Amino acid sequence: MILQKKLEQIGQQARIASNTLRSMSRGVKDAALIHAAQALRNNKTELQIENAKDLEAGRSKGLSNAMLDRLELTDKRITAMAEGLDVIAALPDPVGDITEQYIHPNGLRIARLRQPLGVVGIIYESRPNVTADAAALCLKSGNATILRGGSEAIHSNLAIAKIFSKAVMEAGVSEHALQIITTTDRAAVGEMLKLERYIDVIIPRGGKNLIARIYDESRIPVVAHLDGICHTYIHEDADATMAKRIAVNAKLQRPGVCNTMETLLIHEAGAPLLLPDIAKELTEGGCELRGCERTCQLINCNPATETDWTTEYLDKILSIRVVSSFEEAVCHINEYGSHHSDAIITESYNAAERFLDEVDSASVYVNASTRFTDGFEFGLGAEIGISTSKLHCRGPMALEGLTSLKYIVHGTGQIRE
Amino acid sequence: MILQKKLEQIGQQARIASNTLRSMSRGVKDAALIHAAQALRNNKTELQIENAKDLEAGRSKGLSNAMLDRLELTDKRITAMAEGLDVIAALPDPVGDITEQYIHPNGLRIARLRQPLGVVGIIYESRPNVTADAAALCLKSGNATILRGGSEAIHSNLAIAKIFSKAVMEAGVSEHALQIITTTDRAAVGEMLKLERYIDVIIPRGGKNLIARIYDESRIPVVAHLDGICHTYIHEDADATMAKRIAVNAKLQRPGVCNTMETLLIHEAGAPLLLPDIAKELTEGGCELRGCERTCQLINCNPATETDWTTEYLDKILSIRVVSSFEEAVCHINEYGSHHSDAIITESYNAAERFLDEVDSASVYVNASTRFTDGFEFGLGAEIGISTSKLHCRGPMALEGLTSLKYIVHGTGQIRE
Repeated sequence: MILQKKLEQIGQQARIASNTLRSMSRGVKDAALIHAAQALRNNKTELQIENAKDLEAGRSKGLSNAMLDRLELTDKRITAMAEGLDVIAALPDPVGDITEQYIHPNGLRIARLRQPLGVVGIIYESRPNVTADAAALCLKSGNATILRGGSEAIHSNLAIAKIFSKAVMEAGVSEHALQIITTTDRAAVGEMLKLERYIDVIIPRGGKNLIARIYDESRIPVVAHLDGICHTYIHEDADATMAKRIAVNAKLQRPGVCNTMETLLIHEAGAPLLLPDIAKELTEGGCELRGCERTCQLINCNPATETDWTTEYLDKILSIRVVSSFEEAVCHINEYGSHHSDAIITESYNAAERFLDEVDSASVYVNASTRFTDGFEFGLGAEIGISTSKLHCRGPMALEGLTSLKYIVHGTGQIRE
Repeated sequence: MILQKKLEQIGQQARIASNTLRSMSRGVKDAALIHAAQALRNNKTELQIENAKDLEAGRSKGLSNAMLDRLELTDKRITAMAEGLDVIAALPDPVGDITEQYIHPNGLRIARLRQPLGVVGIIYESRPNVTADAAALCLKSGNATILRGGSEAIHSNLAIAKIFSKAVMEAGVSEHALQIITTTDRAAVGEMLKLERYIDVIIPRGGKNLIARIYDESRIPVVAHLDGICHTYIHEDADATMAKRIAVNAKLQRPGVCNTMETLLIHEAGAPLLLPDIAKELTEGGCELRGCERTCQLINCNPATETDWTTEYLDKILSIRVVSSFEEAVCHINEYGSHHSDAIITESYNAAERFLDEVDSASVYVNASTRFTDGFEFGLGAEIGISTSKLHCRGPMALEGLTSLKYIVHGTGQIRE
């Protein structure tokens, strides 16, 4: 009950703050972000003292070295976090854009105006730098933000949020523009997800269990950031060198992220020649291969089960399937994939264009690695996540994804007849 | 269990149909719609026989005359329904639009391509013509459709859907492009809302109870069509004649719809002179007035309670509040309104522009009646509903609202370094 009241209060404060943020000039917002960047640099020692508490707790809890590494706020990472805010300050402000305007025959001037969503709730389990990133993107796009980070980074998150909030307040932004939930009580997430009166959208960033829970419980619209079960399909006429380079890059350049290839599809015509060569390079890179029956006849690998086609390994594991046709490849991707990022390697104009058209994914590629699906790589200048939702925003999501269009109508006394 | 299996099958069939609809050429879709329009005209007698069953059942159930009237498929209404399909056929096809395209420094050609959402589920309680309208808008935008209409119109809805489906099939569209749920069992809605694997979005059209239930139960994203608690605010410097004309139009031109004014706000400076005049015309038009304390001192009316400010009357009832300032009016609208449609009447440039900026509603007006919020009036050529959601699509929603943008990337062998 106390928790519920506390969350209600946070929601109300955010809603009030969002009403001033909506009309805040770009100058104020940018100056606030630049000031916050400087504050993070100036308070490096404080950040590292708080971060040490999380690292200490993580060690006692037996977190893996990889997780402890993700958690650590090194000098370099603090500098990068501050630079991130400077970059966001320099991006164009999406708020106030008029995307279309026309005069109705009755004289009404009708326009669509880009506006902040209002209050954005972010529930995340990621590295502590997400605290600064998310807060900055929401502020730049005129939204109030409520953050709920993972318990393993609680001290670091609170320290970053405190420094950020103080700095932007000094620059004239409301003290409730950014609020962070200070308790690690898991029930707080449940209470947050009931605040449909105050929060306009929930953006989850984290593991499958967290996201599944949010989908189940939320009464607030959620912009999905689900699995990346990404495919590379090597068509029969693919350039062999390009196919190998892209497949290896898509799997091994950074295996633990969502835009990494999890399944390789290869046309039966090219498989006998190409697959052994690609498999060799992947295996040498430390990758475990799991193949369909026909794959197992061509290379040395473990047999893949039905489950493999729907598994996001996030690791040096790859499932491989030999297909008899272009159509079989597209069907496989639309059926088993997560509609995130999928690529075809081909020299055929027709296959390329059909693939772009027929594959129902947020990002579809010809002759390039799926690893490019990313707000920075796509030139958005930033990223709050990669949406697998079809509604609102598909694919890499940055400032524009944190806004929507309202209609504004200038009249001269028109009434409806 | 049988119901669940049946719904699953409908979902699977819709998903398969959506894969062919995604790439269907405009020519085929338009020809199908024109053929369906003709089929509705040709089968007028069959439609009216089925419609008579609904009217008969409605009379036995004691439906009001107004409801029976809404249900009836007169000659004129069947003609209008057919014309609606011809109009949709003539609209531009949103699918395939490239909204932006740029070359990344690494040579990738990145574009955003407009695509159908996939499978649209529509749950409605409205007039039977919604069956044809919704099916046509979804087909034109390349989506497969699953319809679930109200039990009171079941025979009419099934007849329209059957004629529509047969006609579009004859024109080369998949038989599962349009599916309608034939049972009136309320449990079917619950099963439909679990089909998140197959349905991409649920669009509800109906009364509050229906929509509340859908929000509670749906695991599929819902595009909101909630209350229209619309305001007209008469600023202190409003032109008196214009203010009265617009206020009367916004309330009385069609009281039973969502874009009708439910609350009139008036600045204290103008109220003593203006309010009696406006009240007189509204009362003569049969409107009941419920005023705040200050309103009751100026005109003869019932006292408004707190509940009135959040009530969508959908009737000849109006709540009235005298405000002391522009800010009080904006606060009232943002606090009590439903973020649907709100208007200011003013001669002040500053007040007009501030109102457009500060009122957080899907459609915001200066010097015009809120009754214009409508897909046809806004020039969209059609309407599947009026969204009060901030995500995806705000305000009148037609073909573009039934699509989203995916990224397509043309590469020449790029890998991520």
